[in-house]
Amino acid sequence: MSVIDQLSTELARLPGIGPKTALRLVHHLLKGSREQPRRLARALEEVADRVRACRVCGNFTEHEECEVCVNPRRDASIVCVVEEAFEVGAIERTGQYRGLFHVLGGHLAPLDGVGPNELNVASLLGRIRDARGGVNEVILATNASVEGEATAVYLEEMIRPMGARVSRLARGIPVGSDLEYVDGTTIAEALAGRREM
Amino acid sequence: MSVIDQLSTELARLPGIGPKTALRLVHHLLKGSREQPRRLARALEEVADRVRACRVCGNFTEHEECEVCVNPRRDASIVCVVEEAFEVGAIERTGQYRGLFHVLGGHLAPLDGVGPNELNVASLLGRIRDARGGVNEVILATNASVEGEATAVYLEEMIRPMGARVSRLARGIPVGSDLEYVDGTTIAEALAGRREM
Repeated sequence: MSVIDQLSTELARLPGIGPKTALRLVHHLLKGSREQPRRLARALEEVADRVRACRVCGNFTEHEECEVCVNPRRDASIVCVVEEAFEVGAIERTGQYRGLFHVLGGHLAPLDGVGPNELNVASLLGRIRDARGGVNEVILATNASVEGEATAVYLEEMIRPMGARVSRLARGIPVGSDLEYVDGTTIAEALAGRREM
Repeated sequence: MSVIDQLSTELARLPGIGPKTALRLVHHLLKGSREQPRRLARALEEVADRVRACRVCGNFTEHEECEVCVNPRRDASIVCVVEEAFEVGAIERTGQYRGLFHVLGGHLAPLDGVGPNELNVASLLGRIRDARGGVNEVILATNASVEGEATAVYLEEMIRPMGARVSRLARGIPVGSDLEYVDGTTIAEALAGRREM
């Protein structure tokens, strides 16, 4: 296999990149200077070498603990639970959240053999139990899918007895969308969760 | 900038990959084992180190000359001229072409300062002039765009006096497409180029 085929094969393993797109990318990388593929290669090596899971919350970090966990200005009484580490970034970019995070590493999927022991559930319960100052609120920000909902319901049952408030992200019409194109379940949720103006 | 941001930035430089897709790719690469990003990094380094332009035709190769040029079973009396090296692969994959190639490295674009001297035109004319056994036919497979057409017209004027037949790829309805969705210019070309059944 030529090195070009090797690179296409590797690129085509990435989600959303088929064999044709992979070839286009290879040829783009070959058209310019050799500096671009080298820089990309270095960035990949660095990420592979240096990024790991935060010891406390499971977020990506280059250190023992992530920058959210070590930041003394974050509100340690609120923990936002997400399925995957990259969802931390989605919430951070809003600039509206000052609490901490906890990354489950997926959602419950009994048929695929993913139970609570396969997720970072024990460490979440441990954090809530042992937190200095206590945890007042746990925001369940699992995905709005069937599995995400089931995971949220399970976690709520585990956490509520520990005395923390448990909330989840509001369901409703995404900002900027035409009602016409929003599915019925979402509209129903938006109706049920309507707020007085 | 964190190593994750660095990698996203590099990925987002690729055509068709925006910042959000880049982030998803990074997180995909971080989810699995570290072997995947390392393999991709190695493939990129290999390509950057080893791939160069064929001395004869400009196609990609890991050697002095590409595998088409060194293949004694290829018909050296036919040369197919393409704009970019990756278009060689598109024609090769049809399995229908047994001649040689010549890569121009782009198309004529006077407004952008791309004249014949900026393309591999002199080497093409030299090949036709000096070919042992002679070149019987030059297929102009430049793109079916205005610039590609203009480049083909220019090359045709240069090559015809040298005694070789000059042809171009047929224009017509792409296989498998509904006439309804084919643009008028293409239908007009298909009509003009219609063939008796």
